[in-house]
Amino acid sequence: MNSFGRIFRILIFGESHGPAIGVSIDGVPAGIPLKIDDFITDLNRRKAGAKGTTPRIEDDTPEIISGWFNEQTTGAPLTILFRNSNTQSSDYQDIAKTPRPGHADFVAYKRFEGFNDVRGGGHFSGRLTVALVAAGVVAKKILKNIDISARVISAGGSTNIDGAIEKAMGKGDSIGGLVECRANGIPIGWGEPFFDSVESVISHLAFAIPAVKGIEFGSGFQAANMLGSEHNDPILDETGRTATNNAGGISGGLTNGNELVFRVAIKPTSSIGAKQKTFSIDSGKVEELYVEGRHDVCIALRLPVIVEAITAISLADFMMINKGISKP
Amino acid sequence: MNSFGRIFRILIFGESHGPAIGVSIDGVPAGIPLKIDDFITDLNRRKAGAKGTTPRIEDDTPEIISGWFNEQTTGAPLTILFRNSNTQSSDYQDIAKTPRPGHADFVAYKRFEGFNDVRGGGHFSGRLTVALVAAGVVAKKILKNIDISARVISAGGSTNIDGAIEKAMGKGDSIGGLVECRANGIPIGWGEPFFDSVESVISHLAFAIPAVKGIEFGSGFQAANMLGSEHNDPILDETGRTATNNAGGISGGLTNGNELVFRVAIKPTSSIGAKQKTFSIDSGKVEELYVEGRHDVCIALRLPVIVEAITAISLADFMMINKGISKP
Amino acid sequence: MNSFGRIFRILIFGESHGPAIGVSIDGVPAGIPLKIDDFITDLNRRKAGAKGTTPRIEDDTPEIISGWFNEQTTGAPLTILFRNSNTQSSDYQDIAKTPRPGHADFVAYKRFEGFNDVRGGGHFSGRLTVALVAAGVVAKKILKNIDISARVISAGGSTNIDGAIEKAMGKGDSIGGLVECRANGIPIGWGEPFFDSVESVISHLAFAIPAVKGIEFGSGFQAANMLGSEHNDPILDETGRTATNNAGGISGGLTNGNELVFRVAIKPTSSIGAKQKTFSIDSGKVEELYVEGRHDVCIALRLPVIVEAITAISLADFMMINKGISKP
Amino acid sequence: MNSFGRIFRILIFGESHGPAIGVSIDGVPAGIPLKIDDFITDLNRRKAGAKGTTPRIEDDTPEIISGWFNEQTTGAPLTILFRNSNTQSSDYQDIAKTPRPGHADFVAYKRFEGFNDVRGGGHFSGRLTVALVAAGVVAKKILKNIDISARVISAGGSTNIDGAIEKAMGKGDSIGGLVECRANGIPIGWGEPFFDSVESVISHLAFAIPAVKGIEFGSGFQAANMLGSEHNDPILDETGRTATNNAGGISGGLTNGNELVFRVAIKPTSSIGAKQKTFSIDSGKVEELYVEGRHDVCIALRLPVIVEAITAISLADFMMINKGISKP
Repeated sequence: MNSFGRIFRILIFGESHGPAIGVSIDGVPAGIPLKIDDFITDLNRRKAGAKGTTPRIEDDTPEIISGWFNEQTTGAPLTILFRNSNTQSSDYQDIAKTPRPGHADFVAYKRFEGFNDVRGGGHFSGRLTVALVAAGVVAKKILKNIDISARVISAGGSTNIDGAIEKAMGKGDSIGGLVECRANGIPIGWGEPFFDSVESVISHLAFAIPAVKGIEFGSGFQAANMLGSEHNDPILDETGRTATNNAGGISGGLTNGNELVFRVAIKPTSSIGAKQKTFSIDSGKVEELYVEGRHDVCIALRLPVIVEAITAISLADFMMINKGISKP
Repeated sequence: MNSFGRIFRILIFGESHGPAIGVSIDGVPAGIPLKIDDFITDLNRRKAGAKGTTPRIEDDTPEIISGWFNEQTTGAPLTILFRNSNTQSSDYQDIAKTPRPGHADFVAYKRFEGFNDVRGGGHFSGRLTVALVAAGVVAKKILKNIDISARVISAGGSTNIDGAIEKAMGKGDSIGGLVECRANGIPIGWGEPFFDSVESVISHLAFAIPAVKGIEFGSGFQAANMLGSEHNDPILDETGRTATNNAGGISGGLTNGNELVFRVAIKPTSSIGAKQKTFSIDSGKVEELYVEGRHDVCIALRLPVIVEAITAISLADFMMINKGISKP
Repeated sequence: MNSFGRIFRILIFGESHGPAIGVSIDGVPAGIPLKIDDFITDLNRRKAGAKGTTPRIEDDTPEIISGWFNEQTTGAPLTILFRNSNTQSSDYQDIAKTPRPGHADFVAYKRFEGFNDVRGGGHFSGRLTVALVAAGVVAKKILKNIDISARVISAGGSTNIDGAIEKAMGKGDSIGGLVECRANGIPIGWGEPFFDSVESVISHLAFAIPAVKGIEFGSGFQAANMLGSEHNDPILDETGRTATNNAGGISGGLTNGNELVFRVAIKPTSSIGAKQKTFSIDSGKVEELYVEGRHDVCIALRLPVIVEAITAISLADFMMINKGISKP
Repeated sequence: MNSFGRIFRILIFGESHGPAIGVSIDGVPAGIPLKIDDFITDLNRRKAGAKGTTPRIEDDTPEIISGWFNEQTTGAPLTILFRNSNTQSSDYQDIAKTPRPGHADFVAYKRFEGFNDVRGGGHFSGRLTVALVAAGVVAKKILKNIDISARVISAGGSTNIDGAIEKAMGKGDSIGGLVECRANGIPIGWGEPFFDSVESVISHLAFAIPAVKGIEFGSGFQAANMLGSEHNDPILDETGRTATNNAGGISGGLTNGNELVFRVAIKPTSSIGAKQKTFSIDSGKVEELYVEGRHDVCIALRLPVIVEAITAISLADFMMINKGISKP
């Protein structure tokens, strides 16, 4: 399903090489000041161009076509389009016949019985994350006094990120990475038991981002190796501040007033310069494949702003539900 | 929110020391044979009693109060109750005043302004997972020819699980663990882009299970350290079978016909025998706390059947949506 | 689907002759005082016994099994059961074979392939409305300073309701009726465009009540015969008060500060004393049918409290969404 | 909330005088042939130009910007835009200050605290129904062998529709009307108890259409005046065919195999040529208002195709849920 959220709701649409990518955001309060310029910083952070990212550069200028009047939100659905201009569909003409390893080509072909838009991965393309970033900009505006910040903490297993990228580039290969997100200023008690724990909603959105393979909160996988006496975070005062933060800022699925901390593991970009083997639907045999087109060496480099966006989207909805459900 | 799912929908209710825990399952096809005995094996796997788990033993006999006639499902909501009989509320009388580290006591107090049922953790108790297991039994019956199997693969950082538990027991401490789940026989193409990827839905439910700190699919966190040339799974034939399974059976958020593989990291049980420090709401100072009551040394031991349950619940809903959305 | 609502959400389960009817209410704020006695008045209004209603009398004592502690709501799902005690299943033994005209027997048989619980109409029984009434009691407690009141305004086409009932009784027949509901004290602006207009949500719930055939707001069907110059309600002052109320208290799908007014049309009870003809699934022929069991002469008499309940349920959810979506 | 549906889901966005009106349709099966021309007939039926409808004529050419490839649906969200070209915003400049009787101006101002797009009614405009019609065209393509047909059966209380319109036109006034919809070929058993009865879902969507004041199914309001012996529809054979159709094709909330019949009551257009009185927010007094701009004499004339659309949208979703929930 291409929509998510309960009050602050987003719907994402579009394909990599179709006319446009877009997002429609419902449940936006009226009267939030919003300028086109407000999107630029975050869109640029996601955009191609840095070392290790693909040279495909879209203009990525947001076009707001509904829910916006006099540079303020109106309370009606806010729809934002990103026109696709820089498309080179011929690069992808063989995808339908020779599915690329690591990509959705084969399963999409089976699921949609060959009717899916194959160009550039179609609706499965990482290009759709531009819509998440735009929704994240709006969500951040709704969240007052909450600071969300994500960054790449390792690439290809190394904290020397530039070095790891150059090395992979030299081999025509790609590398994975680890992104950490921290958020401060969240009040105690956001999140909705039993099923909409903060971890549940953030992980739901995180795994919608192409290339994410794992997520952990606070101590995360390390918790499996720990003793209870080390893992429990002693509560220090009436604000709920704890001496350690193995909980990652979440207790019982609810925010506990401490810093929200989580990490996502990103796989290496599936499109690589080297030749690969894959099954050809046309010939019915395994064949050699050379994936043309423009690729990122390390897709993780683009992810921090996207991870911030899904965090902001989750928190905005939690805030609204919390406010709505509070005692009348 | 205490309900989850789109067609196969579950609602969970109840508190640890209230009259009953229950689940109401909507969207169950009519005519599925179902006996009380069908629940016993999975309920026993979750139940207390094994080394490292708490001596609190509930009878855990399911009482079906709706949607069931002549030992078959009727198509109406199937509601299953588990009466709480073996409750010792006095053990927990101080929770409201001295919140236990690692538990939801403090945040629940703040969120619900002191009105939450504190006894045994109330609605935040691990006891609610009995309802997930029951829903999992029903989901498994709907999933034909799909085999789901989870097990503990390490505890306290060691694969010698019994040894690790005995060691922690001796110290009056608790340990975490790692649970791996594998599922076979899933057709290609289940899962719903963009937001309801298979990983998204399974992780959403996984993080509703108390004590889960992380989840990874296929290569998982290791992917962050890998090269694209190693990580890509070469497709071998028209069934979509791949030479390796770094994808964990999921491509582009859709099942790809290979084994579904994921792991969840479980924190050490928060209730431990040793004394701890915590902030007392009553006195306004940090005080010493000794958590009485009955505790698991390694809560991970109970989780495999719960992880299987949430996998089955996810897959049953995916199957139904997939069938519903298929070309008319 | 057996659940409804966005924040204030209800799930209804149970069958007429099963162990119990129940409702689970999610999204209830913590700390709402609630006693068993609070349900009695509304449950009694719905209960059988008055002239024109069936002599089947259930005890209808609500049993609260979750979300309730120290006679206050806890913020966890509030589950309320009504045990079925006074069931005479033998009356209904032939339903499966000879579907009763006006009832769901035939379509339920087809839809659920014969697996539905046929006893007393099973999940289609009017008995399930006891769950709506219970949810309505909770919703009314959440709605402060809002007064909701419904009554029968005609039966069998006559405003002399008692007379119409006696006349139908004498013939062993049944009659329909008209119920009008009015609510005062609702703030301006509740309701959610485009799809969740106040009329949309109330009518959605109204048509879930068995026997409802129509609904109209304000001028209703009479509007089709009117001129714009008569129909427009002149706005008189800054509170939005209007000189007339053809809008029924709703403009553009939102409450407008005036009295909410709507009417529902109720069909005559389908079970009548007289013999009827129906197709027999057993014999494959049209046969004569005499519907035994206990029937209402005029089911409309029981509906006012149910109509109030669905109004309160709708308004409670609107209030919460409105609060949640308001400018931060 | 601006989205509706469970599997076949629509989201509607846009404002009367904004850049575009649009709809995004999720849950569309892949491989449905779809041409721009397929929309023309239904869009023309809704479009202005006939006697009694406003002279504002938009080009109404649908622009498909996602989910569509090689003139077939792809399985990704299908987004359709209608650019607004023929807008005369100056006509509406006073709306913010002097709310028009019968319109949403006043409540929208209060709800959105003055931030709503007031031009032409903004998001409350009947212009948004162009999106419903487009979604209806897609839904009709999914529903095979089902025939849906709606028509105006009276206007201003008269079946001589042309005459009634001319008469009202002469007075500079507007009139209401009655629209009847009939659908044939629907299988037995669509609809989802308890809350998603066929009547519930259709009425939910019907009341989202501006100007609808009432809805009735089969016998409708007349049922309130009938005897049970007249109202019950005798079942004639194993197909569920009934001798009469007071049920309107629905029993127990499920389709029963007979013709689906319902009627909606439409109020007279709120914008009339005559002068009216209304409260001015600016002056704080009741003033005289002359509503400039382009108005329909009888908005009911445009509604049949919209009513067909919401019927098709409802049925497409019911079909998909029914298929998904069927026994595996």
